[in-house]
Amino acid sequence: MASRYRVEYALKQHRKDNFIEWIKGLLAVPFVLQAGKPSQKEITKEKEQETLERYARILKDVEHLIESHIEQTAKGQQYSQLKMLVPTITSFWTPLPLVEALYDLEPKLCLAKRSFVAPSFNDVRTILGGAQLRYLAQNCLEMVSFDGDVTLYEDGQPLLPDNPVISRLVQLLSKDIYVVILTAAGYPSRSGKEYMDRFSGLLQAIEDTDLTDDQKRRLHVLGGESNYLFEYNPLHGLQWIESESWMLPIMKTWPADEISEILDSAETALRSCINALNIDARIIRKERSVGFVPSLGQRLRREQLEETVLEVQTTLQLRDFSVPFTAFNGGNDIWCDIGDKKLGVRCLQYFFAISHPSKCLHVGDQFLSAGNNDYKARSAATTVWVSSPSETVEFLDYYFSHLPYQP
Amino acid sequence: MASRYRVEYALKQHRKDNFIEWIKGLLAVPFVLQAGKPSQKEITKEKEQETLERYARILKDVEHLIESHIEQTAKGQQYSQLKMLVPTITSFWTPLPLVEALYDLEPKLCLAKRSFVAPSFNDVRTILGGAQLRYLAQNCLEMVSFDGDVTLYEDGQPLLPDNPVISRLVQLLSKDIYVVILTAAGYPSRSGKEYMDRFSGLLQAIEDTDLTDDQKRRLHVLGGESNYLFEYNPLHGLQWIESESWMLPIMKTWPADEISEILDSAETALRSCINALNIDARIIRKERSVGFVPSLGQRLRREQLEETVLEVQTTLQLRDFSVPFTAFNGGNDIWCDIGDKKLGVRCLQYFFAISHPSKCLHVGDQFLSAGNNDYKARSAATTVWVSSPSETVEFLDYYFSHLPYQP
Amino acid sequence: MASRYRVEYALKQHRKDNFIEWIKGLLAVPFVLQAGKPSQKEITKEKEQETLERYARILKDVEHLIESHIEQTAKGQQYSQLKMLVPTITSFWTPLPLVEALYDLEPKLCLAKRSFVAPSFNDVRTILGGAQLRYLAQNCLEMVSFDGDVTLYEDGQPLLPDNPVISRLVQLLSKDIYVVILTAAGYPSRSGKEYMDRFSGLLQAIEDTDLTDDQKRRLHVLGGESNYLFEYNPLHGLQWIESESWMLPIMKTWPADEISEILDSAETALRSCINALNIDARIIRKERSVGFVPSLGQRLRREQLEETVLEVQTTLQLRDFSVPFTAFNGGNDIWCDIGDKKLGVRCLQYFFAISHPSKCLHVGDQFLSAGNNDYKARSAATTVWVSSPSETVEFLDYYFSHLPYQP
Amino acid sequence: MASRYRVEYALKQHRKDNFIEWIKGLLAVPFVLQAGKPSQKEITKEKEQETLERYARILKDVEHLIESHIEQTAKGQQYSQLKMLVPTITSFWTPLPLVEALYDLEPKLCLAKRSFVAPSFNDVRTILGGAQLRYLAQNCLEMVSFDGDVTLYEDGQPLLPDNPVISRLVQLLSKDIYVVILTAAGYPSRSGKEYMDRFSGLLQAIEDTDLTDDQKRRLHVLGGESNYLFEYNPLHGLQWIESESWMLPIMKTWPADEISEILDSAETALRSCINALNIDARIIRKERSVGFVPSLGQRLRREQLEETVLEVQTTLQLRDFSVPFTAFNGGNDIWCDIGDKKLGVRCLQYFFAISHPSKCLHVGDQFLSAGNNDYKARSAATTVWVSSPSETVEFLDYYFSHLPYQP
Repeated sequence: MASRYRVEYALKQHRKDNFIEWIKGLLAVPFVLQAGKPSQKEITKEKEQETLERYARILKDVEHLIESHIEQTAKGQQYSQLKMLVPTITSFWTPLPLVEALYDLEPKLCLAKRSFVAPSFNDVRTILGGAQLRYLAQNCLEMVSFDGDVTLYEDGQPLLPDNPVISRLVQLLSKDIYVVILTAAGYPSRSGKEYMDRFSGLLQAIEDTDLTDDQKRRLHVLGGESNYLFEYNPLHGLQWIESESWMLPIMKTWPADEISEILDSAETALRSCINALNIDARIIRKERSVGFVPSLGQRLRREQLEETVLEVQTTLQLRDFSVPFTAFNGGNDIWCDIGDKKLGVRCLQYFFAISHPSKCLHVGDQFLSAGNNDYKARSAATTVWVSSPSETVEFLDYYFSHLPYQP
Repeated sequence: MASRYRVEYALKQHRKDNFIEWIKGLLAVPFVLQAGKPSQKEITKEKEQETLERYARILKDVEHLIESHIEQTAKGQQYSQLKMLVPTITSFWTPLPLVEALYDLEPKLCLAKRSFVAPSFNDVRTILGGAQLRYLAQNCLEMVSFDGDVTLYEDGQPLLPDNPVISRLVQLLSKDIYVVILTAAGYPSRSGKEYMDRFSGLLQAIEDTDLTDDQKRRLHVLGGESNYLFEYNPLHGLQWIESESWMLPIMKTWPADEISEILDSAETALRSCINALNIDARIIRKERSVGFVPSLGQRLRREQLEETVLEVQTTLQLRDFSVPFTAFNGGNDIWCDIGDKKLGVRCLQYFFAISHPSKCLHVGDQFLSAGNNDYKARSAATTVWVSSPSETVEFLDYYFSHLPYQP
Repeated sequence: MASRYRVEYALKQHRKDNFIEWIKGLLAVPFVLQAGKPSQKEITKEKEQETLERYARILKDVEHLIESHIEQTAKGQQYSQLKMLVPTITSFWTPLPLVEALYDLEPKLCLAKRSFVAPSFNDVRTILGGAQLRYLAQNCLEMVSFDGDVTLYEDGQPLLPDNPVISRLVQLLSKDIYVVILTAAGYPSRSGKEYMDRFSGLLQAIEDTDLTDDQKRRLHVLGGESNYLFEYNPLHGLQWIESESWMLPIMKTWPADEISEILDSAETALRSCINALNIDARIIRKERSVGFVPSLGQRLRREQLEETVLEVQTTLQLRDFSVPFTAFNGGNDIWCDIGDKKLGVRCLQYFFAISHPSKCLHVGDQFLSAGNNDYKARSAATTVWVSSPSETVEFLDYYFSHLPYQP
Repeated sequence: MASRYRVEYALKQHRKDNFIEWIKGLLAVPFVLQAGKPSQKEITKEKEQETLERYARILKDVEHLIESHIEQTAKGQQYSQLKMLVPTITSFWTPLPLVEALYDLEPKLCLAKRSFVAPSFNDVRTILGGAQLRYLAQNCLEMVSFDGDVTLYEDGQPLLPDNPVISRLVQLLSKDIYVVILTAAGYPSRSGKEYMDRFSGLLQAIEDTDLTDDQKRRLHVLGGESNYLFEYNPLHGLQWIESESWMLPIMKTWPADEISEILDSAETALRSCINALNIDARIIRKERSVGFVPSLGQRLRREQLEETVLEVQTTLQLRDFSVPFTAFNGGNDIWCDIGDKKLGVRCLQYFFAISHPSKCLHVGDQFLSAGNNDYKARSAATTVWVSSPSETVEFLDYYFSHLPYQP
């Protein structure tokens, strides 16, 4: 029977993370075999331990599949067992100690105590994030980039002084790790004023720490996906860096007229959506970006946002542009930027002379494959997917707790 | 292939509204046949009209299925064509003019303009709500009850004076319609102080209107699902009404010891969940209710909330109690109340001498079949499912706009 | 995403065996974790053993779920864990040693050797059948009934002398077990001629054996689902038995006019299908049965057969008759019989004074819930589902091989 | 909910024809809106007409999608609306008049008369085949190739003199159309004896007709997928044609050692499957082919056949051979042939100087994407998918009935 009625399947594929869904499907079986039974919360330790071991055993197999996928990819082979099972799978930059992460996180997730709620998408996402961080803590991490809205601070808000993430960013810097805010928000002014206003809580905190100047200088902001780079300067706050020194060579060859054409096409698509879908918003055109934001107090419907971002994306894809772009749904606004976060991360790796994606981590909240701008960072760095600023803090604390002891 | 791997299907059925999902499936076909095509937002009027007509044609068929389901139910027949297609379907109290609602709402929903986002759950929910209100506007509506949190005001907030819903409630009263806040929040004190504090914005507004006293007295608050009734009194605000006069006879026979037993069982289940799932919350036991609320600033995980409510529910169901109860997930708290909103609505119909469910409307935000307390109201009144206070306002305005002209 | 587009789900539910599909879903997980890898057929013994153990572990859990379902049903409880997971589950008359059956049957099924083909519906059906027979071999079996076509002989064929099933039926008789051919084919003539012609191969073989007369007399034919009973008589072959002596009391009270009315309704439905669906067939009306068979050499389309059987079934169900009937799809013909195989089995249990369904086995090939006449036997006896006469032989040999050694 | 539990989805994709399933999903909606209602077989003509029009309207849209897919493919564009909806879609060589085929075939399919059985896979397959033939009848058809087993005659049988397909093949020849039996069966002997024995019924019939010699010579047999070509010769029956004259240039460059290596690898895989899966069969190695056939009277289990063909296929795919091969499941045997039917068709087009795939038709029964050898013909010719020899006859008669009148 069945999947025949999913007549618009192909149009929606991008709305799922197939690897997470697949793992969720695997974990459903041990869950189900002990499910649906009430009044057993005072379950015996042994029973609980057994269930947990069954989850662990599955995750151990997934670990092996990931490892052999890494190996085969390294050898340039198309085939891997994992690829046969999850055809949309891409690269893994490191192995993932999923089983250790499972045991670490069980006090929080309580998977083995649950009789009615199967291991969920969020549970699996959390285990994957934990495993990634556990691996990175045991190895050498040289750079962490963070998306801004929803990842470091609430959507549309500034980074306020009392934001608990600030002390974690400082802690990263104190370990000589580059910390980059890698945001879609693009302000072309060389003064960096807009970024300094928005991140003043963080900048002030760094000024006040006893980090070395060298450590402080490791803080950067890369705005507009991959367009404007600023370095923290102990004297002047954020300082503009000429693109000459950090941009990838290929990016310097982008033809200006193609860039205009992309933004023109995107703008036309945006306008036609505003018009057709009765959207109360105004277009904002910047040097390397175009988008719309709703009129004050308006919440756009999810359907309006998704339709628009797919319209812009498909329209541009049909034109076969050589310059990359990112069209994304910002939650209550839509943007199309020149460049993307993959390039952003690669520029930083080039500029900081980092040798391998496995030494970099990108933390973000937008990882579905369409209309989500953190997704592309996956192909240049390890990633952790968070759902709120407080999760970012939890994940960073988890990372710190697994760093090797340094007396 | 396919559904064979949905090994825990049965445990999750309650998380969907099958009727809405079914209609969404029907509408997907006309959608798909014009989908995936960018740059056609400037679509011709004819093309758009054609797509809209195809949606309308399907909804017209659904209208007919509902009508014959009503007829067959009235005749006491088990079988109906709709029941064969959507076996979980329950009663409809009125026909639903879905096609008219579709055309009315199209400027908002823009279904026929969309090429990438199929008619969604929210779109269908909106059309169903619109159709219900359109029908009620053309017929005689005698009572509207509203859930509190999320329906009238933001979760956990009071009903503030600047809340735009207030003027709409006043407008309902001005049409001699009973307006009831039918809330789970239960405060057994006869003074009504807690309710008066929470709803002061509304009470003040009513005091200030030029409604007749009789109209003002039509405002009621029914707290604790179906436990404490207050009537607005122009002199003293909310005034306690003795249960003798409004409770259904059957409710008066509920044995006190069974009530205690239910609350005891629920409390035990709640405690074991707090313990097993590492929940940072405290139990609150009231006269006819028990629940837990998280410690200040804590957000419980969705998995914790769902596991708990299903644990409580299943534990109690296994005991075969004769007294009805409602265990529900309040978003960041869990409650188990004696009684339910179905009884609440029936008490009000009894007290106000309303002859038929079709003359009553319940507006709420919790309509999935498990752990959601508005759901039960469906079996006693027509309902509209909203997702935010601002939607409540929009729906009420839609209702008013379709009232027959009264010079 | 997903199941929302299965708009006609409810109309097709009967085409699946949910319990088998559910087990298949469970087994898919161990399969997948070692799947998709070629060139490993020469797999190490350990690896193979490990995979087999994982399948066994899941089946062990299913065994436990079945056992506690049996217990709870015995206590009259509505709830069971299995019922929450597979809501359409019915009764189990015995526990099922699935794990032992798995190990027994692995040389045939080769589940742990397969990398590309997951445990299939047929594999699970085979394991369930094996487990049932293994249990029965260890306990006391008093009666085995067999469907005729497809179960004992090819569709529409007679039971020929060289049919290998014959010696197995004799072997069952030699163990003092009642053997019954329980067939839809109904010939009201008391002479039993039609049955004697059709089963002459078997009758001759029995005549030629050295079974005791008492053993021979244990062979019976029950025709027309539950309408005409014949006993083997060493002198005269099949001998008519008066219904007075074997029919359930309730069956004797069936009103003759209701029986006519059922057959009339069915006939009308059959005629309208012949007409509407351009079926080249002729109606056959018997005393307690009506059906159609295609003209010589015609193969009816599957769609014609299914539409007809559902039309007849639904038409009759709407009439709320008190006399039970069976409308079924015979592969290339359609029949509606008065009575059903559940009643057939119960009559036999009554006539042979068998105390419990667990002492009876029905072997058949039609076990989907609609339009399949063996399905109903499930509620009166243990069952084994075969797909061909050769499978019947294999299953019986499996049964004999597990009988306790009797020197 | 839902598709997350389809953990082995990717391993099974090849078992479905996504385009047919998709159309089936579309047609389900008009079906459902009039479904589940018994006793309406005597439905009014208008109602029936209305349902049929709804099916037609959907098929009309599918026609348009196919046309614009053809156009876009012609322009070399990657994108087409149809490709977004059915990503696995390949090429169409001609438009398909689906609506006309629907109306033609309705007396057979009775779609608009059915209330319980939705338009099925077979119904859609039939409509697609009919539409293809209708188009070809109106345009110029120059060659028809036929698979042998199941398409022209029962599996494993010869083409007997009384086979009704013979007169249809003669009729094709009489219209100066090339008729080719394009079979996997490969007999390297130049005498053509094996083929002449197998097809003697046909050869005799041709000898006896009054076709011109030129017409008779248009009958060909291409054996071993694309390895051995024979032409009908009025004097000697089948006559070997030197590959020099008909093989594609590229095929002549295939290295002999790679061919051996492919067959060696396939043989090893076959042996390991025989061994691991306890298959009772013997290997047959030919010049350009290797396979196994079961011992006399053995029916292999479907699971054994599928596991083997996937094992062979995957093993070979991992080796990145340049010479094409076909591993397929013959129903009760497995073969791996050098070459494939796509090449077979292309050789014939080259040899017969046919200018375009749209002038050729391949009729076969194996069109699922893995382990099915007719599937590959799709990329070189139009195709019709039959399920039995009698369907081949029906389809050919349908074709003849739509040929323009030639006085």
